[in-house]
Amino acid sequence: MVRQRLQSLREKMKEKGIHAYLVPTDDFHGSEYVGDYFKCREYITGFTGSAGTALVMQDMAGLWTDGRYFIQAERQMAGSGVTLFRMGEPGVPTLHEFLKEHVKEGECLGFDGRTVSAREAERLEKLMEGNHALVKSDIDLIGEVWEDRPALSCEPVWELDLCWAGEPREEKCRKIREEMKKKGADAFLLTSLEDIAWMLNIRGNDIHCCPVVLSYLLMTEQEICLFAGEKAFSQQIQDSLEKAGVSLYGYEEIYDYLQKLPEGIKVLLNKGKVNGRLVNCLPKDTVILDQVNPTLLPKALKNETEVENERIAHIKDGTAVTKFIFWLKKNVGKISITELSAAKKLEELRREQEHFLGNSFDPIISYGEHAAMNHYSATPETDIPVLPEGLLLADTGGHYLEGSTDITRTIAMGALTEEQKKFFTAVLRGNLNLAAAKFRQGCRGVNLDYLARGPLWEMEEDFNHGTGHGVGYLLSVHEDPNGIRWKILPDREDSAVFEEGMITSNEPGYYVEGQYGIRHENLMVCKKAAEKDGKTFLCFENLTMAPFDLEAVVPEQMTEKERELLNEYHAQVFEKIGPHLTEEEREWLREATRRI
Amino acid sequence: MVRQRLQSLREKMKEKGIHAYLVPTDDFHGSEYVGDYFKCREYITGFTGSAGTALVMQDMAGLWTDGRYFIQAERQMAGSGVTLFRMGEPGVPTLHEFLKEHVKEGECLGFDGRTVSAREAERLEKLMEGNHALVKSDIDLIGEVWEDRPALSCEPVWELDLCWAGEPREEKCRKIREEMKKKGADAFLLTSLEDIAWMLNIRGNDIHCCPVVLSYLLMTEQEICLFAGEKAFSQQIQDSLEKAGVSLYGYEEIYDYLQKLPEGIKVLLNKGKVNGRLVNCLPKDTVILDQVNPTLLPKALKNETEVENERIAHIKDGTAVTKFIFWLKKNVGKISITELSAAKKLEELRREQEHFLGNSFDPIISYGEHAAMNHYSATPETDIPVLPEGLLLADTGGHYLEGSTDITRTIAMGALTEEQKKFFTAVLRGNLNLAAAKFRQGCRGVNLDYLARGPLWEMEEDFNHGTGHGVGYLLSVHEDPNGIRWKILPDREDSAVFEEGMITSNEPGYYVEGQYGIRHENLMVCKKAAEKDGKTFLCFENLTMAPFDLEAVVPEQMTEKERELLNEYHAQVFEKIGPHLTEEEREWLREATRRI
Repeated sequence: MVRQRLQSLREKMKEKGIHAYLVPTDDFHGSEYVGDYFKCREYITGFTGSAGTALVMQDMAGLWTDGRYFIQAERQMAGSGVTLFRMGEPGVPTLHEFLKEHVKEGECLGFDGRTVSAREAERLEKLMEGNHALVKSDIDLIGEVWEDRPALSCEPVWELDLCWAGEPREEKCRKIREEMKKKGADAFLLTSLEDIAWMLNIRGNDIHCCPVVLSYLLMTEQEICLFAGEKAFSQQIQDSLEKAGVSLYGYEEIYDYLQKLPEGIKVLLNKGKVNGRLVNCLPKDTVILDQVNPTLLPKALKNETEVENERIAHIKDGTAVTKFIFWLKKNVGKISITELSAAKKLEELRREQEHFLGNSFDPIISYGEHAAMNHYSATPETDIPVLPEGLLLADTGGHYLEGSTDITRTIAMGALTEEQKKFFTAVLRGNLNLAAAKFRQGCRGVNLDYLARGPLWEMEEDFNHGTGHGVGYLLSVHEDPNGIRWKILPDREDSAVFEEGMITSNEPGYYVEGQYGIRHENLMVCKKAAEKDGKTFLCFENLTMAPFDLEAVVPEQMTEKERELLNEYHAQVFEKIGPHLTEEEREWLREATRRI
Repeated sequence: MVRQRLQSLREKMKEKGIHAYLVPTDDFHGSEYVGDYFKCREYITGFTGSAGTALVMQDMAGLWTDGRYFIQAERQMAGSGVTLFRMGEPGVPTLHEFLKEHVKEGECLGFDGRTVSAREAERLEKLMEGNHALVKSDIDLIGEVWEDRPALSCEPVWELDLCWAGEPREEKCRKIREEMKKKGADAFLLTSLEDIAWMLNIRGNDIHCCPVVLSYLLMTEQEICLFAGEKAFSQQIQDSLEKAGVSLYGYEEIYDYLQKLPEGIKVLLNKGKVNGRLVNCLPKDTVILDQVNPTLLPKALKNETEVENERIAHIKDGTAVTKFIFWLKKNVGKISITELSAAKKLEELRREQEHFLGNSFDPIISYGEHAAMNHYSATPETDIPVLPEGLLLADTGGHYLEGSTDITRTIAMGALTEEQKKFFTAVLRGNLNLAAAKFRQGCRGVNLDYLARGPLWEMEEDFNHGTGHGVGYLLSVHEDPNGIRWKILPDREDSAVFEEGMITSNEPGYYVEGQYGIRHENLMVCKKAAEKDGKTFLCFENLTMAPFDLEAVVPEQMTEKERELLNEYHAQVFEKIGPHLTEEEREWLREATRRI
């Protein structure tokens, strides 16, 4: 199938005079996950992973992806004629190096400029300029050969009421406009879907597990133009938006609209987020103020209503997760449980909670050695039974009107080895110490990461992922600009200074390939701890409320302070979750949250 | 006196057509401290602090300096006609802002281009260009009015033998040349005095407490030109240097030499370090490769010989400090002791040690409330008696052939308050936890700083300085690029990734204005802890060996692990220092290092 598709594409390329055609993973908004309409790279390679770029030439087809996906890509592309380029492996050229070497003078590199950021488009243009080669980016060749392409998603849009959002859209827009003026911008071009949804207090369902609305937004001093599928908006919402000065235009009209902007206009945009074709549409003498979106920080700083709601969401979610753990412990070895059936059970328990809207990401319920694979998510082909032994890792989350959750618990299904307990305890110590941090305003994730990793580093062990990421309010569960990692990675905009109201995950882990995986994840909200002598101290409050499995904990391997932190946390869990359980569940939770 | 000097300068300025004249603190090499010849800013303002810039115009004279020096500058410049500009205070213009506003079109800003970095010179030129004003930087007006200016220092140069340096200069030069070639440079211009001394294994005495040789160096593929006071070099050293391909030129000849370099030459230099006039002397079409000096990192990575020597230096130094503490404890309240007499005593004790060459910085012996002032160093005017009560802070260090030391001990002279003990203990916990860190290769100071500050931050307290700085081998006690602080300050090049062989101080503190100050400082060398599954773990080894005062420690406020860390350290101190003491001192040390 992929071979036929490649052949059609190559014919189309010949017809259009394109020598090399690039197919990135992105939608037109740089979203982390994309809707079915945008899955061009999957269409042309057969590879379904969430990251990677395909390149097709007459005599080659290649896919560049990273270490998370080598095995999956190899398997999915077997026999397709697409070569896997293992990014980061020695001797493997980067995509740019490959293009530099293989696109010759006078040849033409093509790609759909809507699927790369303006920043990346500039890099590609510069690269080809160096080769005296051409670039054509106002085309969509996959679109021309993909006959049964799904339609653009256009799911109904709904309003997030003030009691959930905490701040009216008028007020948000006013503040963003102020920022715009401060920066001397006449217009602000915003295409990040989470930011648009946040600013306008609207939600939709255009991306799997992420309730955003496929749209572009252009704000000027006079108006706010929202470019989106008009059918998705009821008259009521249109009226409501109009009151806030928002005019609705067709989704694709933005490209024409930008071309007609006045000469010399100053446009604020983030070239790393806005797609290349949009920037190409701006009049030639436009002054581009290439900066971080002014929506990024206020979106991350949850207001008081949002934080109060999140506390409620996490009690609901913790109730579902606690019931799930109880159910697992009670039934394992007695009834048939598999990774997929367990995930289904947990989703059912979440559905019982009022205001639950759906999973905030595809659940990761991984048993035994599956849990050592960081990006494992069970499919009917990989699903295995859960037995009364070893560890089960459950990384799941839900969207509620009161906010989004993301929680990982690692659960003892039966007897554990001493080693498993040792690492379970070490990872838990990291989680507890990080959650208990008190720190000067101005600190970032790099300042605090040691707290989570220290217990493992002391044993000369580590885990290969970041310790924490920002989380949106009924938006994406991966939200910039806050995060926790020890390496300074300037390209990842996730190491902002912590501020009151930011919600960040705390998820140290430990993985033994082929054997087991451990991760303990809570969401925490950043709060003010004290103001003293002109210095502000911040701390975290655990939002997530569910027990850590004491059956896997070795109290003697914890300090007194760490035991006390765990006891305090568990007392809170019992207090907040207990009232929402059955008598049997509550008695179990009492024991599961006992002092150690 | 300053008034007369200002008048002479203003006349000179009129004569030369200079409307504003800048007098920075720097020597021609950007050294942290400068020789007497270079103290132009002190000459023209009367202010003796180590940082600040003076600006003189016909109708104003100002000094810009930072918070450390407000009180001192105010006092020293009283009645001089020089206005203090308190940097960082609200409403106070920066020097650049002031110049922007006050140097008018067609006017001329003058300064000695040798006393500002090329980077700063470029900024000033750009600033004046914006004002359509001129810049004249090939002048030294202070030199023209300063009649009794001290001569340039030209102290005898000596060779650091291989048994101290660990690597012959030929080998060092070969490696730097390799780096030079890798970067495509035809020449490497090095003017940082520590780097020149390190590369050539020479030492001198041209800066107070810093045994460097006033010199510039230009390395090409063919030769190494050393521009320095020729009288400072014995024939033997000249011959020895010549064997390594080093030719000696007069100190000031470099300016002519650079002008005669071949056209189009590619010169590697660090614009933040090399002075502006040198860069101006390069032929117009010179290609400047503006990069970190390739000497910076190898100088910081002490070789095995250097590390082994440092261990010895620190036993000698620890012996002197231990004897000093014993002497203080025995004699306080019985004989007259003042801050200055105590400093003298400690220097005498250091002088008893073989290979001691002098203090590595002016000793800070501060008693009581004096210790709360971070930059206090006693003078005959401020000297006070040390009484048998409260805390004495001793931050001192020595140069030995075996390396440089920098140690702070805070010593109980008698009864302490509970509060003093609480903070003494908290600061000590920070020191112990940081020294015990084990971490992945790739970590920087920002990753580890929390370990030192955590105990204070938990109490919502802090100290207002960095936690650690790099230390040179018989060079400056403040050496880039390693350091420990929590803030990311890109302008300070002190947050490099830790590597084996780097020596860094570990010096948390706590200060109560008007009352007391606490600081515990050890030097630590970075070592490999383990290599496991392709991951390298690093750790620190304490070099400094002297007891922490148990009379000020509250064991109950420490964790079991922290007490064990202290006990282990004290056992080492007794083992290494004990043999070098008298019987009486040894018995005292046995008690002073007892297990708690």
